[in-house]
Amino acid sequence: MKTLVIVAHPERTNSGVQQFLKESSASLVDVTYHYLDEQKPTIDVKAERHLLRQHQRIIFQFPMYWYSAPALLKNWIDCVITEQRNHLNLEGKELGIVISMGLKEEAFQAGGKERFTLSELMRPFEAISHACGMTYLPIFPIYLFTYQTDEEKKNLLIKYQQYVTMHFPQNFASRETWFLTQLKQKMTHSNLSNEQRDRLIQLTDVIKENRHHLTDLLTTLDEMRMEE
Amino acid sequence: MKTLVIVAHPERTNSGVQQFLKESSASLVDVTYHYLDEQKPTIDVKAERHLLRQHQRIIFQFPMYWYSAPALLKNWIDCVITEQRNHLNLEGKELGIVISMGLKEEAFQAGGKERFTLSELMRPFEAISHACGMTYLPIFPIYLFTYQTDEEKKNLLIKYQQYVTMHFPQNFASRETWFLTQLKQKMTHSNLSNEQRDRLIQLTDVIKENRHHLTDLLTTLDEMRMEE
Repeated sequence: MKTLVIVAHPERTNSGVQQFLKESSASLVDVTYHYLDEQKPTIDVKAERHLLRQHQRIIFQFPMYWYSAPALLKNWIDCVITEQRNHLNLEGKELGIVISMGLKEEAFQAGGKERFTLSELMRPFEAISHACGMTYLPIFPIYLFTYQTDEEKKNLLIKYQQYVTMHFPQNFASRETWFLTQLKQKMTHSNLSNEQRDRLIQLTDVIKENRHHLTDLLTTLDEMRMEE
Repeated sequence: MKTLVIVAHPERTNSGVQQFLKESSASLVDVTYHYLDEQKPTIDVKAERHLLRQHQRIIFQFPMYWYSAPALLKNWIDCVITEQRNHLNLEGKELGIVISMGLKEEAFQAGGKERFTLSELMRPFEAISHACGMTYLPIFPIYLFTYQTDEEKKNLLIKYQQYVTMHFPQNFASRETWFLTQLKQKMTHSNLSNEQRDRLIQLTDVIKENRHHLTDLLTTLDEMRMEE
């Protein structure tokens, strides 16, 4: 699966979170980053559509500007995804949203400071996804990045890498498979020491062993449910 | 009350509905039309804010582009309404939306072609209104304008004029007051014939008489409710 991340941040080079996400994705394979702030004012519609056709997962990544995407992204959408959307062959592809906000998670609910949930505010994207026959992925929200601890940022990095490359729906089994793939990719790096390689092999074995245990447990659970 | 209608249609001169709305509003007083497609690419933020300050009702008028406003309007919002929104004194003002669509009304519902209601799709505008302490007016939707009959268009014209100038919440009494004000304005036109003037006076009398009847009826109704 190939992923296209369309980044729409008018002041991207000054953005801590965009810098972090860029570094987080450096090791990922089959991921194309497309920075709209680097494009010419007149969009090359043909080239953009070509890019869309080459990828299966499309992700819009942007800071929240007035409860939506910056105009930079809306302009891109208005130009590139036109009435002749059938020619774009978006059907069956996935649409994801990575949105960063300078607000707390609890602000986005009925009775909260911003009143509406992210799912409600992003309805236009969900409607686009529906109209184009795409699968709409759960939104990936980043709240108050600047205030996150190192531990929280480490966690964010893993979750973000998974959002961009992992198969949906995400569950324990798909996370396991994802980690195994990541470890395998790391092991092919030629600049690993023998010690590092040994540790990666060890880790892989632990995950595989855990998987067997888990399968056994799930079978037992199923049997217990049947007896109820 | 002064109304500012901000029209955001990238191809306005080719739009039948925008032409119709422009003609519909020709006789209205205290209404300023502001065409974003006529503005320079670089927005004069100071001038735009000055314009906002001078009006009590702000209306965004646009065709639906991908379940939202065209990028032209989003860009204006991103530039003009900034973090220092307190300086804009939008608090207590009203925000209205006039949106035209090439789709049927029934498409916008759960299970319908477009899946979501207009209220849901316009949530970002409602959230802006909430954040700025404004009163959010009911959306004014125009479905399939080109297919409307002359009768439907006449009705649309009146409803649109009311949306732009009439006090909310709209009810029978406020509609009556609105019609009387309109008739009074018409009577001040110097180019009316005596016959036309007489008919307007007659119409005014009928509405005023009806109002008395209605007040009597409402009083009787209230008394009946009290007795229950």
